[in-house]
Amino acid sequence: MQSPPSPTCSETNDFLPLSQLRVEECGSERAIGKLIQELKSYIVTDIPRMRSTVSFYVCYLLCLCLGMACVMCVCYWNAHWRGGFAWDGSALQFNWHPVLMVTGLVVLYGNGAVLYRVPLTWGENKLSWKLLHAGVMLLAMVLSVLGLCAVFGNHNHNHIPNLYSLHSWVGICTTALFTTQWVAGLVGFLLPCSPMPFRKLLKPVHVWLGASILLLSIVSCISGINEKLFFALKANTNGTKPYAMLPPEAVLGNSLGVLIVAFGLVVLKILSNPNWQRPEPRSNEATYRPLLQEDT
Amino acid sequence: MQSPPSPTCSETNDFLPLSQLRVEECGSERAIGKLIQELKSYIVTDIPRMRSTVSFYVCYLLCLCLGMACVMCVCYWNAHWRGGFAWDGSALQFNWHPVLMVTGLVVLYGNGAVLYRVPLTWGENKLSWKLLHAGVMLLAMVLSVLGLCAVFGNHNHNHIPNLYSLHSWVGICTTALFTTQWVAGLVGFLLPCSPMPFRKLLKPVHVWLGASILLLSIVSCISGINEKLFFALKANTNGTKPYAMLPPEAVLGNSLGVLIVAFGLVVLKILSNPNWQRPEPRSNEATYRPLLQEDT
Repeated sequence: MQSPPSPTCSETNDFLPLSQLRVEECGSERAIGKLIQELKSYIVTDIPRMRSTVSFYVCYLLCLCLGMACVMCVCYWNAHWRGGFAWDGSALQFNWHPVLMVTGLVVLYGNGAVLYRVPLTWGENKLSWKLLHAGVMLLAMVLSVLGLCAVFGNHNHNHIPNLYSLHSWVGICTTALFTTQWVAGLVGFLLPCSPMPFRKLLKPVHVWLGASILLLSIVSCISGINEKLFFALKANTNGTKPYAMLPPEAVLGNSLGVLIVAFGLVVLKILSNPNWQRPEPRSNEATYRPLLQEDT
Repeated sequence: MQSPPSPTCSETNDFLPLSQLRVEECGSERAIGKLIQELKSYIVTDIPRMRSTVSFYVCYLLCLCLGMACVMCVCYWNAHWRGGFAWDGSALQFNWHPVLMVTGLVVLYGNGAVLYRVPLTWGENKLSWKLLHAGVMLLAMVLSVLGLCAVFGNHNHNHIPNLYSLHSWVGICTTALFTTQWVAGLVGFLLPCSPMPFRKLLKPVHVWLGASILLLSIVSCISGINEKLFFALKANTNGTKPYAMLPPEAVLGNSLGVLIVAFGLVVLKILSNPNWQRPEPRSNEATYRPLLQEDT
């Protein structure tokens, strides 16, 4: 029976302290060979990994900036050009609709979706990030439902029919799918009552449906902004120029649409890059461990 | 030096001929062991692969059916409800716009994008499928450009400003990106003048931009159909009911929008499933071999 090999100087360090290594201390060619091997491994593995992390954070920063720009733009549009906000059934109540939908269904939703891609969240304690993901999505869902209430209230107050336009059909389907997704996520990934095969089956569906809901919410927002600008910008009403003459409000509205599309593309880029996915632990059970098991 | 092992009965067959195997002929426990091993490998590897292939073809069939439904629906809408087609600057010329954009930028584009995912195309002769992919995309691009010409011609004839709505901003960006993508694809993957590092760099960008263009084309189509229905369905014009009362044409237009969204989601599902990706050959060079090298 062979005795286990004695540790070398490079084996005693997690990181590679190149400058601290003294050949006399190690006293063998084997140590130098190992050092060269680790150096090669560093060049082959760690440099591309660092590059990938840096490019992720560039994308993530872009995602955060575009998200903030979308929220600021939609708030400014409705506060400055559409007369502000109220909750009295008037047109001022309608103004909550674009603000809440863009903030909830696009910006918060997109940020909640990419949360697991942030390397900072890859520590052992997945539960807190899982709860944050669920929390951000819950807030996004509440804002979206409030956004729908704003438009239904305004329509009912002014005897305007609900749910007739293509925009409204896509929008209501998006919110319904989002609610279903959130409830399924809660049952599948947080509550202990769901069986393991169901969770394993649910995960790819959850990921794909997540990206699809973002796509649908972008479709809803762009068609809604387009529709609103045609409704709002007509010639000879309160001295406004028609949409076709591209007054400043039209440029602002169109720019909001472009920002939303850019935000969506950046989020989908982050979601689709396999190098930016959270590394799964070796045991599948750890990944699918529900809330109560993790608590105990 | 050891002599190479003599072939066993199972090694002489590419497929596993369970029924033809005779233990007496093989004459060893090793053969039976190997048989059991291959059977296990068949259960572990081949059955999931077959399941994956079947589920791909179900999705692909759905993609083809939804694509055909989209084309039929947009043609019927414009032929039956919008008065048919002409190329004289009138409203009948405009009717080509939705037909050509939906057929080119959504249905043909989507089918061209998933072409490499069809297992039938995974043979050695990649060049013919590469040319078919480029050809389908070229046809899609030509139809899209003709679709733009239809609307520009109609607007210019009737002194309507071009490119002011959000729909038109997103639409023109989509077609411009599509053209850039097609030219970059031609230069990068078909012509021999592009260097190998450029091709390797281009491939993930080409794949991601491909999916993004589909997303943008869906956004453009939905916002365009929504806009058109608001323009076309107004009360007291030619006895038509307003959009808000959901006359049959509105239901048809909205259904077309839902079909387009469903088609897009199925295509993106096919594109995003890693199990359905074309297996890459061992040598990277074969993947990136340009047209003239493959020809020779």
